[in-house]
Amino acid sequence: MFIAMNRFQVAKGEEEAFETLWKTRKSYLDEVPGFGGFHLLRGPEAEDHTLYASHTIWATKADFEAWTQSEAFRKAHAQAGSAKPRYLGPPRFEGFEAIHSVPAPSEAA
Amino acid sequence: MFIAMNRFQVAKGEEEAFETLWKTRKSYLDEVPGFGGFHLLRGPEAEDHTLYASHTIWATKADFEAWTQSEAFRKAHAQAGSAKPRYLGPPRFEGFEAIHSVPAPSEAA
Repeated sequence: MFIAMNRFQVAKGEEEAFETLWKTRKSYLDEVPGFGGFHLLRGPEAEDHTLYASHTIWATKADFEAWTQSEAFRKAHAQAGSAKPRYLGPPRFEGFEAIHSVPAPSEAA
Repeated sequence: MFIAMNRFQVAKGEEEAFETLWKTRKSYLDEVPGFGGFHLLRGPEAEDHTLYASHTIWATKADFEAWTQSEAFRKAHAQAGSAKPRYLGPPRFEGFEAIHSVPAPSEAA
């Protein structure tokens, strides 16, 4: 399992615009091989920003990389639109490989 | 859904000791109300360290907070043992609230 996260430092007061952007745009992710679920996460608040992270689960890192080259990716990112929340710096990408897991009781065989 | 992450900057060369620590200790998480799955994640490498993150899914933030006060938490953290991988600074905790989701196709109703 591979988790792709992008960290966004959203300027104070811009949180609602940022959330609306994500809630209203179409992701096209459900068409993509290896897609295992997406969450937009709201993290800790700092003095001048609120941390958000996009959090996408992929079967493998190769599935994630194939998505970044896909038509679904292009379509999703072509919708930037007019809402432009203010950020403190560019988003910061971090990719994570799961190397050890403890399943939830309902997932355990 | 609440995701609790703890970020660890593990000194170069200490990765195997760190991973072994997590793979061999008993988490006691499967006894805990609201527990929705745990992953140890290996993230990007920097010049002097490798980023790791523990990643635990909880039904609610209150479930996570109750766990930190529980006997299961105490037992899991009493096993620190003799292996002491070297870190660059203390772990950094970040709690995230899911505010928008796109389920995997198999999860969709």
